[in-house]
Amino acid sequence: MKLFGGIEAGGTKFVCLVGAGPEKLVDEKRFPTTSPEETIAQVVEFFAPYARRGDLAALGIASFGPLDLNRASPTYGFITTTPKPGWGQVDLCGEIGRRLGLPVAFDTDVNAAALGEQVWTPENRALDPLLYMTIGTGIGVGAIVHGRPVHGLMHTEAGHFAIPHNRQKDPFPGVCPYHQDCLEGLASGPSMHKRWGQKAETLPAAHPAWDLEAEYIALALVNLIYAYSPLRIVLGGGVPEHAGLHQAVRRKVQELLNGYIHSAWVQANIDEYILPPTLGSRSGVLGAIALAIREQAGYDSLADAFAHGARSI
Amino acid sequence: MKLFGGIEAGGTKFVCLVGAGPEKLVDEKRFPTTSPEETIAQVVEFFAPYARRGDLAALGIASFGPLDLNRASPTYGFITTTPKPGWGQVDLCGEIGRRLGLPVAFDTDVNAAALGEQVWTPENRALDPLLYMTIGTGIGVGAIVHGRPVHGLMHTEAGHFAIPHNRQKDPFPGVCPYHQDCLEGLASGPSMHKRWGQKAETLPAAHPAWDLEAEYIALALVNLIYAYSPLRIVLGGGVPEHAGLHQAVRRKVQELLNGYIHSAWVQANIDEYILPPTLGSRSGVLGAIALAIREQAGYDSLADAFAHGARSI
Repeated sequence: MKLFGGIEAGGTKFVCLVGAGPEKLVDEKRFPTTSPEETIAQVVEFFAPYARRGDLAALGIASFGPLDLNRASPTYGFITTTPKPGWGQVDLCGEIGRRLGLPVAFDTDVNAAALGEQVWTPENRALDPLLYMTIGTGIGVGAIVHGRPVHGLMHTEAGHFAIPHNRQKDPFPGVCPYHQDCLEGLASGPSMHKRWGQKAETLPAAHPAWDLEAEYIALALVNLIYAYSPLRIVLGGGVPEHAGLHQAVRRKVQELLNGYIHSAWVQANIDEYILPPTLGSRSGVLGAIALAIREQAGYDSLADAFAHGARSI
Repeated sequence: MKLFGGIEAGGTKFVCLVGAGPEKLVDEKRFPTTSPEETIAQVVEFFAPYARRGDLAALGIASFGPLDLNRASPTYGFITTTPKPGWGQVDLCGEIGRRLGLPVAFDTDVNAAALGEQVWTPENRALDPLLYMTIGTGIGVGAIVHGRPVHGLMHTEAGHFAIPHNRQKDPFPGVCPYHQDCLEGLASGPSMHKRWGQKAETLPAAHPAWDLEAEYIALALVNLIYAYSPLRIVLGGGVPEHAGLHQAVRRKVQELLNGYIHSAWVQANIDEYILPPTLGSRSGVLGAIALAIREQAGYDSLADAFAHGARSI
């Protein structure tokens, strides 16, 4: 049986996985993100023995962005204009593929996580659109529609949603360098840190920070519900791991929808609608494995299989 | 050559069309929306001679909503909980199909308009995602992703986006019965009418209403850009017909994106990005014709042809 390589390229750490899905994990390595040269060398070193033995059919990369995902572009496979020092205009996909001599599939970390959650969680296979939102250092959203990640001009960037900001209630101006008080500017981990003078994970459960945070997340989710009418929303990342936040978000989503007629199902079944990742911290890297399988087996055939839940891979 | 029937079912008027695309228009009728019984009778009367002669292969309906689009549901094809008197729980799709003895495809007016704009406008065929937003009595958004309309829990309802509302600048509380100051509550035709005490179309060009309106529309478009990363946005309906509004919206979209790195293309090519409908007032009914063609020829085959711009229909 052929194996696949998955790479989750994050701003703080990389996760590399050899396997063929959540039931077939062969080898895994996590290491901190340093310079592109050093980090890519570690990726190559990890996979090289498997590649040499011919064990790997393809690689998938789930990367922090922004990315160039346009296969017709001369910079396809690049991390483009990231503020992360040294990582702008890095040919992540091409460099890794060339050095390991393998075909590579490439997408955003959040699109891959959304795909991983849809493909590898049997009860999610028929749930389409499926969205994955992560809230941590940044806020990112991945979207699967008709079984495939949504790409267009770029990729989903709903972390930068313009949302209502009541400055009487929350005078904090926001931290986004582009939009100041967009969603990421108001609700990311660094925003919480700056507003309250301490890291999010050190804020006690009764702190008003959490009510405000739940409200901003709920505003974003309501906008995503209106945009995509998703059948499932997976809410991951560090911030939502705070005890009680998921429940608070769900309650506020219902309040904001305000019994809106179109969302009767959401009103009744909110606890099955907005959920933590089934794959835990492996949504992204297992999504990368799914990307790799598609790269090797043909995108469309598997896309259809995934979309219709017709068969497992 | 087989013909198709297209029906745009609007809250104020119905448009019925016999044809096979914008180059093949055979017969058209427009009449005001009255009771469901009377209106459906007029639809049936218009198409009956064509159906009797066997000229029609299928019908497509592009309807005001909310709609039940779930083919597995006992109320598939119904208008569901509309506030429009008499039209709640009306089996529009089933009733018309049974009385004319034809297969019927069914979608929202805005999804059909988006599909029509993508399918029948050659330069739009490869532009996916493509979004269609209409601003008039209500605000609606249709979305085509991977060549197909987006359906999920329901359908896109981005007219109800939560957007920033600066009450110092605009103390008007909004008119949405569900959310008060959501997008539709702040920027629909009736909202403009109530805020300024006169109908939108009577407001002079220099009135501050138009600057505010452009800002709300731009906030919604920016959120749609972040959600879908569309390759084209078509902006239709009565309100955007106001001279200069399209230009003002484009300028404000660029301001709100604020040079955001991911949107370099939008910064340079905004005038090719947000456009009025190519099909004028026929986007919806010609989208209904496209739905009908798919219903008859098989959804997937045509979806792929449309999505990849591989061939004309």
